[in-house]
Amino acid sequence: MTRNEKNGNPEFGHRPGEKAVTLPPQTDAGVYFIGRIRTPWKQRKDCPKNARESDAVCTLEIDARWAAGLKDVESCSHLIVLYWMDRAPRDLVLQVPAHYGVQRGTFALRSPARPNPIAMSVVRLLGVEGVTLRVTGLDCLDGTPLLDIKPYFASTDAEPNAVVGWHRPEKAD
Amino acid sequence: MTRNEKNGNPEFGHRPGEKAVTLPPQTDAGVYFIGRIRTPWKQRKDCPKNARESDAVCTLEIDARWAAGLKDVESCSHLIVLYWMDRAPRDLVLQVPAHYGVQRGTFALRSPARPNPIAMSVVRLLGVEGVTLRVTGLDCLDGTPLLDIKPYFASTDAEPNAVVGWHRPEKAD
Repeated sequence: MTRNEKNGNPEFGHRPGEKAVTLPPQTDAGVYFIGRIRTPWKQRKDCPKNARESDAVCTLEIDARWAAGLKDVESCSHLIVLYWMDRAPRDLVLQVPAHYGVQRGTFALRSPARPNPIAMSVVRLLGVEGVTLRVTGLDCLDGTPLLDIKPYFASTDAEPNAVVGWHRPEKAD
Repeated sequence: MTRNEKNGNPEFGHRPGEKAVTLPPQTDAGVYFIGRIRTPWKQRKDCPKNARESDAVCTLEIDARWAAGLKDVESCSHLIVLYWMDRAPRDLVLQVPAHYGVQRGTFALRSPARPNPIAMSVVRLLGVEGVTLRVTGLDCLDGTPLLDIKPYFASTDAEPNAVVGWHRPEKAD
């Protein structure tokens, strides 16, 4: 099956080995964009491949409507940021990432191309000024819609021994 | 401002100290429910307060449409699971969690009540059989809609020294 033309995007080529499915006729729930992410990267090719490659300070700009929700956020050293990768196709189930060149399942990848293009990044919080949060650890395009901010709890979110077997052969216990 | 009646839910009482906002007139994007989460918990009061409290094996059941996307997932020791907390009100910006009794901002909490009720859990993968994944580390209601599965990369996702200051006074460097 080939990718639907309507999802065509020159930044996401349909490579040999990739597989798309027909999307459901409708979505099941709606999300609000609660703000925007400001980064130095205006095109996908400029984004770092891995957020740890970059020390760039990015900002989360939250809409005034939600401002009160930021109370106590400044006490967190790290945050979970969810955002909407609005330029990615949603119908790819098998992908061949350019930098690996091997076919993988979408749910084994962090590619923005997925049924729900919700990205998750762990960021270090540098400061909060009004509705603006300065952070490091992002690798997304400037203007990316923000969905959520959560406190990062090491007790439940940190798994330092986790292994992605296809990426690194040895698997942890 | 009081919480909109239309968002009323007996499982989420409007407590003194809580603040709701008027929701935007429409959502900005749509999500697909890609499957369901099966857990032992049928009511919110039965759910563990913290997923680490429970060794319960839960299952992620992915719709057949997306099955090919599971390729290579079995090589991951841990996964990030995103799911939709469909019973939670979306308009609370200040909350008074019952087990803390103190007013906090929504973005400083992991409460399901938030503008976009997308929960994130880190789970240990026990096995994959067809479109069913057996995992530990979840604390949600049986039947919760599934949004996404991602590989957990310790290199970018594990921050063992992260601190939530309001929860534990000492803050890491």
